[in-house]
Amino acid sequence: MVLDKIREKMEEKGIDLLIIYDREGCTPSLFYVTGFKGEDGVSLISRDKAYLIVDSRYYAQARKELFPSITMVELGKKKTWEMIKKILDDVKPEKVSFEGSRLSYKNYEKLKEIADGAELLPGDELITDLRKIKTQEEVSKIEVAIKVAQDAFNEMLNYVKVGIKERELAAILEFEMKKRGAERPAFDTIIASGWRSALPHGKASEKNIEEGDLIVVDFGAKVDGYNSDLTRTIGVGKVSDKAKEVYEIVRTAQQTACEAARAGMLAKELDTIARKIIDEAGYGENFGHSLGHSIGLEVHEGPIVSASNEDILPSGSVVTIEPGIYIEGEFGIRIEDDVLLTEKGSKCLSSLPRDLMIF
Amino acid sequence: MVLDKIREKMEEKGIDLLIIYDREGCTPSLFYVTGFKGEDGVSLISRDKAYLIVDSRYYAQARKELFPSITMVELGKKKTWEMIKKILDDVKPEKVSFEGSRLSYKNYEKLKEIADGAELLPGDELITDLRKIKTQEEVSKIEVAIKVAQDAFNEMLNYVKVGIKERELAAILEFEMKKRGAERPAFDTIIASGWRSALPHGKASEKNIEEGDLIVVDFGAKVDGYNSDLTRTIGVGKVSDKAKEVYEIVRTAQQTACEAARAGMLAKELDTIARKIIDEAGYGENFGHSLGHSIGLEVHEGPIVSASNEDILPSGSVVTIEPGIYIEGEFGIRIEDDVLLTEKGSKCLSSLPRDLMIF
Repeated sequence: MVLDKIREKMEEKGIDLLIIYDREGCTPSLFYVTGFKGEDGVSLISRDKAYLIVDSRYYAQARKELFPSITMVELGKKKTWEMIKKILDDVKPEKVSFEGSRLSYKNYEKLKEIADGAELLPGDELITDLRKIKTQEEVSKIEVAIKVAQDAFNEMLNYVKVGIKERELAAILEFEMKKRGAERPAFDTIIASGWRSALPHGKASEKNIEEGDLIVVDFGAKVDGYNSDLTRTIGVGKVSDKAKEVYEIVRTAQQTACEAARAGMLAKELDTIARKIIDEAGYGENFGHSLGHSIGLEVHEGPIVSASNEDILPSGSVVTIEPGIYIEGEFGIRIEDDVLLTEKGSKCLSSLPRDLMIF
Repeated sequence: MVLDKIREKMEEKGIDLLIIYDREGCTPSLFYVTGFKGEDGVSLISRDKAYLIVDSRYYAQARKELFPSITMVELGKKKTWEMIKKILDDVKPEKVSFEGSRLSYKNYEKLKEIADGAELLPGDELITDLRKIKTQEEVSKIEVAIKVAQDAFNEMLNYVKVGIKERELAAILEFEMKKRGAERPAFDTIIASGWRSALPHGKASEKNIEEGDLIVVDFGAKVDGYNSDLTRTIGVGKVSDKAKEVYEIVRTAQQTACEAARAGMLAKELDTIARKIIDEAGYGENFGHSLGHSIGLEVHEGPIVSASNEDILPSGSVVTIEPGIYIEGEFGIRIEDDVLLTEKGSKCLSSLPRDLMIF
């Protein structure tokens, strides 16, 4: 299916061969196109053939995982680029495409060397255009990743108390996700309490939870290749009136954007809906990041939901909506849900309560 | 210190400016050079100045983490490439270097566009040559990462029994590492039991541990930026005589290589020591991967210890020694330690027993 759609696009653009080169799992498109979940591999897609080159660590795994339309090529004692050249010599492409934002300069130079005069064209969009629009099966997988994360979060709440370390809470949350089927956390869990909550990316540290702290918990699970990404801000003990007031601003901005979201909007229009509410409350300077981003095989994928992105949000995209207000030295607050956009409007795929929970 | 050494190399090669571009934490050299632990940032090192460009998510964090010699540049509402251009216009370099194996084709093209005719030269080795040789401080950090992983492994052994899932064991192991200070697992934990142990990269799955299984446990912790990487193969219940015999071959190959390792050897010489023992025992075809690789800020870094690598292993390098024998459909065995190489010989930094443990 995916392969058919990629070949349609290749034909439109006159591309004879597409190369997807993954190293250490940095290029999830390899899984998207071939079904292979290993970390290292190279796929070559021509108009009528499709290969995955893997080394001996992955022969048995690839045999189990590969989509039927993909032929496994065992690297044996050959070098990867020798094997790529062998396939190039067979296909004799005139135009070769590759992921321009993934392929390293060094590998691009190697490709040029062996391409025998073929034209080389960056073509990320051959794959990313497809990945933006989630199939029903992909949405279901994201929903599973959300459920695993939410259930683990609810379990972790039982351990929130003064004196426990941020890192201990993160360990519990990640353990509960893994127990429920997560391959791994979608990213290093952010648990940022007290003054650290004002760090938008405050990974869990040795800091103890203290009386009166707000705690930003930003977490997600990766299950069967797909990611969730959620944030809740919770309080411990006596939370200040200022913090409660700012919480309400973030909550309103977040909920309003979630409800207003729909396919067909420009990304920046959605960002503006939340940003305007925070601006008008006087905290515009304290919301420095974008409203959100798409999720799927990667935690951060396009389109991003930023003030400057003029792309249309397509039907079938799944985006995070995560406004925040950060007051350095005092506290920070962020609330984040994962939302499916359709022609009709939005469907919030996540379901944790948005009210401030105090422990 | 690091900066001085990089500048020495820049001077040797006539490089006026070095750019390190990180996205999503894929380029740990950014941390090595600047001290910044965030995921996104760009560092520019000239002969007399050093900058780190970060966006608003990271201002407070960068202020705390940056080495004193690095100046933080706040991105504000500017685009990253605008800011890079501003610094280039100021430095007016004639030769600009970058990480050729990290910078994407797309970013290379952007750099070329704004470089105003400066010569662009890939220069990974400006940093990787330094990273190969660990300082005493770096070795200590790797030792901490090893201790965290070993203690967690020993705790996990209490849970090994028929009926528990591979994934549950991985969850326990990763939880115990995190509790002891790991930022995260160094990589997705491999727990491969029974027939799955013959997959050299068999990430923990839903499979239950069964009577008679061998279990390959390949795991590591990342602590304060540095990684450990260890493997032990354990048995459950009645392990076959063939498995025990093959275990002894792997153990001998691994121990012999650990003891023979020393700085000044060619990487391939070290690989050969273990490979010869496995070859002569008749299992050469079942040891498809390299003997090992260096570890440090990355789990896999150079030099790798492979049959074809003719590089000299320098004093101060820390390498894994991890031979394995894999018999598809039956079982696999791997044993791995982390070894510091010095002029005098080797020091095994890890200390789990090598004898087959049966539960």
